[in-house]
Amino acid sequence: MILDLSSDHVAPAHPAVLAAVAEANQGRARSYGADPWTREAERRLRAIFGPRMSYLPVFNGTGANVLALTAMTRRWESVLCAEDAHVHTDETAAPERAGLKLVLAPSPTGRISPGTLARHLAPGNRHRPQVSVLSLTQSTELGTCYSVADLRALCAEAHELGLAVHLDGARLANAAVTLGVSWAELTTAVGVDVVSLGCSKNGGLLGEGVVVLEPGAVPGLDYLHKAVGQLPAKTRFVSTQLLALLDDDLWYRNARHANAQARRLADGLARLDDVRVQLPTEANAVFADVSAEVAARLAQDVATATWQTTGERGERRLLRLMTAWDTDPADVDRVLACAAAAVGAGRPQQAEPVCSSPTALSAPRP
Amino acid sequence: MILDLSSDHVAPAHPAVLAAVAEANQGRARSYGADPWTREAERRLRAIFGPRMSYLPVFNGTGANVLALTAMTRRWESVLCAEDAHVHTDETAAPERAGLKLVLAPSPTGRISPGTLARHLAPGNRHRPQVSVLSLTQSTELGTCYSVADLRALCAEAHELGLAVHLDGARLANAAVTLGVSWAELTTAVGVDVVSLGCSKNGGLLGEGVVVLEPGAVPGLDYLHKAVGQLPAKTRFVSTQLLALLDDDLWYRNARHANAQARRLADGLARLDDVRVQLPTEANAVFADVSAEVAARLAQDVATATWQTTGERGERRLLRLMTAWDTDPADVDRVLACAAAAVGAGRPQQAEPVCSSPTALSAPRP
Amino acid sequence: MILDLSSDHVAPAHPAVLAAVAEANQGRARSYGADPWTREAERRLRAIFGPRMSYLPVFNGTGANVLALTAMTRRWESVLCAEDAHVHTDETAAPERAGLKLVLAPSPTGRISPGTLARHLAPGNRHRPQVSVLSLTQSTELGTCYSVADLRALCAEAHELGLAVHLDGARLANAAVTLGVSWAELTTAVGVDVVSLGCSKNGGLLGEGVVVLEPGAVPGLDYLHKAVGQLPAKTRFVSTQLLALLDDDLWYRNARHANAQARRLADGLARLDDVRVQLPTEANAVFADVSAEVAARLAQDVATATWQTTGERGERRLLRLMTAWDTDPADVDRVLACAAAAVGAGRPQQAEPVCSSPTALSAPRP
Amino acid sequence: MILDLSSDHVAPAHPAVLAAVAEANQGRARSYGADPWTREAERRLRAIFGPRMSYLPVFNGTGANVLALTAMTRRWESVLCAEDAHVHTDETAAPERAGLKLVLAPSPTGRISPGTLARHLAPGNRHRPQVSVLSLTQSTELGTCYSVADLRALCAEAHELGLAVHLDGARLANAAVTLGVSWAELTTAVGVDVVSLGCSKNGGLLGEGVVVLEPGAVPGLDYLHKAVGQLPAKTRFVSTQLLALLDDDLWYRNARHANAQARRLADGLARLDDVRVQLPTEANAVFADVSAEVAARLAQDVATATWQTTGERGERRLLRLMTAWDTDPADVDRVLACAAAAVGAGRPQQAEPVCSSPTALSAPRP
Repeated sequence: MILDLSSDHVAPAHPAVLAAVAEANQGRARSYGADPWTREAERRLRAIFGPRMSYLPVFNGTGANVLALTAMTRRWESVLCAEDAHVHTDETAAPERAGLKLVLAPSPTGRISPGTLARHLAPGNRHRPQVSVLSLTQSTELGTCYSVADLRALCAEAHELGLAVHLDGARLANAAVTLGVSWAELTTAVGVDVVSLGCSKNGGLLGEGVVVLEPGAVPGLDYLHKAVGQLPAKTRFVSTQLLALLDDDLWYRNARHANAQARRLADGLARLDDVRVQLPTEANAVFADVSAEVAARLAQDVATATWQTTGERGERRLLRLMTAWDTDPADVDRVLACAAAAVGAGRPQQAEPVCSSPTALSAPRP
Repeated sequence: MILDLSSDHVAPAHPAVLAAVAEANQGRARSYGADPWTREAERRLRAIFGPRMSYLPVFNGTGANVLALTAMTRRWESVLCAEDAHVHTDETAAPERAGLKLVLAPSPTGRISPGTLARHLAPGNRHRPQVSVLSLTQSTELGTCYSVADLRALCAEAHELGLAVHLDGARLANAAVTLGVSWAELTTAVGVDVVSLGCSKNGGLLGEGVVVLEPGAVPGLDYLHKAVGQLPAKTRFVSTQLLALLDDDLWYRNARHANAQARRLADGLARLDDVRVQLPTEANAVFADVSAEVAARLAQDVATATWQTTGERGERRLLRLMTAWDTDPADVDRVLACAAAAVGAGRPQQAEPVCSSPTALSAPRP
Repeated sequence: MILDLSSDHVAPAHPAVLAAVAEANQGRARSYGADPWTREAERRLRAIFGPRMSYLPVFNGTGANVLALTAMTRRWESVLCAEDAHVHTDETAAPERAGLKLVLAPSPTGRISPGTLARHLAPGNRHRPQVSVLSLTQSTELGTCYSVADLRALCAEAHELGLAVHLDGARLANAAVTLGVSWAELTTAVGVDVVSLGCSKNGGLLGEGVVVLEPGAVPGLDYLHKAVGQLPAKTRFVSTQLLALLDDDLWYRNARHANAQARRLADGLARLDDVRVQLPTEANAVFADVSAEVAARLAQDVATATWQTTGERGERRLLRLMTAWDTDPADVDRVLACAAAAVGAGRPQQAEPVCSSPTALSAPRP
Repeated sequence: MILDLSSDHVAPAHPAVLAAVAEANQGRARSYGADPWTREAERRLRAIFGPRMSYLPVFNGTGANVLALTAMTRRWESVLCAEDAHVHTDETAAPERAGLKLVLAPSPTGRISPGTLARHLAPGNRHRPQVSVLSLTQSTELGTCYSVADLRALCAEAHELGLAVHLDGARLANAAVTLGVSWAELTTAVGVDVVSLGCSKNGGLLGEGVVVLEPGAVPGLDYLHKAVGQLPAKTRFVSTQLLALLDDDLWYRNARHANAQARRLADGLARLDDVRVQLPTEANAVFADVSAEVAARLAQDVATATWQTTGERGERRLLRLMTAWDTDPADVDRVLACAAAAVGAGRPQQAEPVCSSPTALSAPRP
C-alpha cells in the first residue's frame, strides 16, 4: 500500500506535540491529574469552554465515550445516538459491555434530525429503555457537520425532554473549521453537557480528553475515570499534548489543513466518471461510490475503508478516504491520478508511475 | 513536598524511551497493532518469552489486568487473587464493573501460600463463585517477591485444579532483578499463562503490555482489547517504548537502580529508633512502621503513601516509600536525614537544612 | 376498564395448573432442580424435543432470555435479533445490563427475512460487534409466525455463518397451533439450539423454562442460572406447572382457544369501517389501525396496548388486542360491539349497554 | 436420605399460602404490580413498616438482593457486607455479574461488629472501592441474630459515614421471633433503608419481596425491577402469598415453630459426646462440629450442609442442620437418635431402627 487514507490516525503526531511531551518529561510530577500540565490544560480549556468546565485526560476515544456516557447515566438509563455513531458501530460493543444500552435514531447523512427525538423515548414506561442522554457526533461519522442551529435545536429539544447531551468530538476541530466557529459555539453555547474531545486524530500522540461543561451531569466521574481504565498515572504526558495543540491554534491549523485536503480530494474525485462523491464533504472524510472494479484497481495503490453496497446500479463499493494534518497536497494529487487511472479515463497521469514510489509517498511531512 | 516517594509513577520517562517515541513518529503507520514497531516488539518479546507468545499494547495497568482477566474467564467464572492485590484494592472496582468477581486469598506478606488454593474453590457448586484463574502479583504490592520455586508450585497447583494463571507484572522487572532471573524464568518456565507487563513504572511514558504465553487461555482477546477501551489506534507509540526498554537491557538497569535505592533506604531506616522496616525489601518499595508524630514530621518533607494502623504499640502509621529508575542516591540520603530528624535522633544532618531545598531535590536526574 | 385485552398475562392460571401446584406441595423435596417434578418435566420434554434436550425452570421471560443469551455468548459476542424483538423493545435494557449488545435486523412483519443475516455481521472485524447468536421470536411480537421453511432456512443460514440460534418461545404454543406442527418441528427439527419456553402466557401461574437442544451451545448454563437470579429454590413448583400444561395437551388446547378468539376478533374488526387489521393474525394478537377518536372511545371499555403512528392518513393509533386461554367468545363479541359503537356504525349492539356490565365481563371463565 | 435438614427451602408451602394463591386465581387482573393483591400487600406492610414504605414483589432472594443493591448504588459505588453474607458466598457472583463490588468485613459469628465500619472505607480515594451501602443479614448466615441495639448502632454508624443500609431479611421472621420484636423494630425503627423480605423459607411457595423504607435510597427501582429480571407479570400470585403469611401472624407462627425445633435440636446435640454445637442457636440453623466419622455415619440418615474444617482437633466436619415451619418434633428426636447412634453412645435408640422408616419421616406435616 503506498498511500494510506484508511483513517486519520495513521498520521504521526505533530512535531510540536512531541516537543511538548519532551518538555513535560522533566523530573518527578504528581500523578493522576495532580500535575501542573493537567492543571494548566484545564485552565486553558476554561478560557475556551467557560469557567465551569472541567477536564479529564483519558487514553482513547472509546474510553472517552464509555467514561462520559456511563458517568452521565444511572444504572437503568440508556443513550440515544445516531445509527451511524462510532460508539454503536465501531467500538466492539464497549458501551454494552459496560451495561449501557444504545437506542438508535436514523441518520441518513450522519445526523439526527431535530424534532424527532421524542419518538425514540418512552419515559416512565418501565418496560422500555429509559433514555437519559442524547449522544451526538460532530463532525459525524459520515464526514458531515451539524449546523450550529441544529445543535442548538437538538440540545434544547433534549433538555426539554429531560436528556443531557454528550458530544463525541473526536473530530470537533474539523467541524469548527468547516463551520467557522469556536469550540464553545459548538458546545457550551448551544447546551452540550459533556464532550469527548479528540486529540490523536488531529496531531496528537496518545490520549484524548473528556470535557465536562455541566458538572451536575456527571456525578462520580472521578471514580469512573479510574474504574473504566481510563485514568493515566502519568497524566502530564496526555495533558501536555493538548497544550501543544492549543498553542498558536495548532489544532485549528491541523484541522484546516486536513479539511482542505479532503476538499481537494472530493473535488478531484467528483470530476471522474463512474465516481460519485456521496454526502457533502464537510470535514476530513470523503465518501466515494465506485464500481467494484474501480475499487479493486484503486486498492492496489491507495488504502481506504471500504464497504460493499447494493443499489440501483447493482453491487458497488463505498470508499472512505480520510485526510489528516499531515496529508501532502501532492499526495492528494497522486491519489487522484491513481483514481483516474482506476476508472480508466486515460488521463496523462496514468502514464507516469507516480503511484509506485511508496517511500516518497509515505515520508513524514510535518 | 520536596521529595516525592509516594509512588514509582511520579518519575518521568527515561530519555531513551522518549527518543524511541520520536523515532517512531516518522510518517504514516498502520494502526491498531499492524505497525512495524508492534510487530518488532512482539518479535523481541518472543525471543524472551518463547515462540508461542503474543503481545498486545495497552494503555495502563488497570486496563491490562481487566483485559487479561476478562479474556481468561467466561461469564460465570471468577478470579482468585491475594487480598492485597492491586486489582482488588486499587482499581476502584474495575474488575467488578466488568462483571468479574475476585475471590480473596490471605496474603500476609503480599504472597499467596502454595498449597492453599483449593480451600478457596468450590468447583461444581453452582451457588459458589467458580474460580478459573489465579492472579498473582510479582513483585507484590507489599514489595516482596515470590520465589521461582513458589511460582512454580503455585502454577502447578493452579493448573492441577483447572485454573489458568495470570501474573500482574507491573513490577516484574524489579522481581527479576532481585531474584537474578529472566522474565521467562518467572513466567513461561513456571507455567504462567498471561502477563500484565509493566512499562510505565520502570521508565516508560504511557502504556503497558499484555503478554500471552498460552494462546488457548484468552479466546476473544483481540475483540476484548477494543471492547474494554485498551486498544490504542496509534499502537506504534506504545510498542516503541517497550522496544526502548528492551534495548541494551534498559529495563534491567532501571529496575536494578530502583531496587538498589530501596535497599539503601531500607537499610538506613532500619538503623533509626522508632522506625521498623516491615517486610523484606525485595523490590522498589519500603514499608516503614512509625509513630503518628514521626509520620507527621516526615510528611513535611517527604511524600509517601500512608496507612493508619493499630497494633500492640497503639495507633501507628505505615509508610510506603517507593523508589524508581530516576531516584538519586543523594535524595535517598536526604530522606534518611529527614527521617532521622523526624525521629529526633539528634544526628548532625538535623542541623543542616537539607530538607528545605526543594528545587535541588526535585530536579530530574536522568 | 371492563375488558382487558392489553396482554395475555392478565389471564389467571388454568385450574389444572393450580391443582398441579397443590399436588406438588406434599412434604419436603430437594431444591434447585433436584426434585422429582423437575426430573419428570425433563423426561416429558425429552419425549417431545429429543433425547439430548435439557430443561431448566426459570421465573420469567426476561430471565429466560437473558439466561439463554448470556449462556450462548462469550464476553465479546453479540446477538442478532429483530428490531421488534421483545428482548430489545420490552425488557428495559436487561440484556445490555448483563453486558450483551443486540444487533438489530429489520422486521417489518415481526420476522427477519432469510438470506439477510450476513449483512449484519462483520466477523473478524475487531471494531464491530461480533454476532454469535441469532435470536428469533415465534410467534413474533407482531402476532405473526415464521413458517417452518423460513425457520429451517434461517437456522441453516445462521449455522453456516457460525451463529447459534435462540428462539424466544414465550408464545411457541400459539405458533404450533397456527402452523399445525409440534414444538419439535419448530425447534429441534429445524436446528434451533436453545428455546425460552413460555408457560405463564398460556395458562401458567409463575414460571417459564429454558430448553437446551444443543448442549454445546450453553457452557456454564447451570452457574449462570443462579448468577442471573433465575434459579428458583423450590423448583418443584415451577416444573409442576409445566407438567400440567403437558398433560392431555393442555398447552395445545389453551393456545388453540386463544388463537381462535384472536381470529374471531380480527374477522369482526375487519368488517368495521375505519378499522384496518394490520398484519396477518397468526397467533393470539390482533393489531388494528384506527383513528385517534375511535381509539379514545374504545379505550373507555376495552384495555389494549396502544401506539401512536403517523402515516398517509395522518396521526393514527395502532391497537394491540390480545386473547388468552380464558377469553370468552361472548367477551370477544362484546369487544366487537364496543368497537362498532366506537366507529359509530350505528349497529344494533350500540343500543344495548353490553359494555357497561363490568362484573360479568371480568369473571373467570376457565 | 430420610431426613432432609439441608436447608429450609426443602419445605413445602404452608397450606394457607396455597389457598391464598387459589383465591387470587380469579379472573383477569392487571399485571406488573397493578393488581389488587399487590396493592393490598403494600397497604398491609405499611401498617407494619410505616407509611413511607413501598413494596415490590420479586422472585427469589438472589434477585431481591441484586435488585436492592443495584438500586441503592450508583455505577461507581460498592457494598460493604459480612464475609459470610449470602450475597457474597452463595449467589454465584450475581452482584459482580451486575457490576457491583462487595467489600468484606470480618464476621466471626456472622455479625459485623459496630464501630468497625470506617476501617473498610476510603471515601474520596478514587482508587479504592467507594462503599455507599452497608448490607446486613438478619438472622445471619450462621444462625445468629444482631441485637436491636447492634442494629441501631450499625445503622447510625453507617448513616454517619454516608452509607445507606440494606437488610437481607431472608429469615427476618426468625430473628423477630428470637428477639421478641416486630419487623419494624428491626428495620424502620433502627434506620434500615431497604429490606429483602423473605417468604419462601418461611412457608411461601415462590417469591420474595423488596421493601423500601427510605424511598430516596432507590431511585430507578421500578426500572431495575424489570431490568434485572425480577418483575413478575402475574404479580398477584406473589403478593397473595405474602398476604397469607401476614394473616393471623402466620409468618410468626411458622418462624416460632422452626426456631423452637432448632433449639430442641441444638439442646439434644449439645448433650452428645464428640458433638460441639457451635455459635448460639438464635434462629432456625444449628451448626455442629463433629468428627469426619460421625459426619459420615449421620449422613446415611440425615441430609445436612457440610463443610470440612481443620482445627486443633484435626480434620473435622461442620454440619448445618436447618429446621423449617414444617419440621416435626418427632423428626427432630429421630435426628437426635441418629446422631446419638452415630457418635456411638450406645443409647437405647440405637437398638431400634427408627432411622430406617423413610416414608414416615418424610411425610408432610402441615
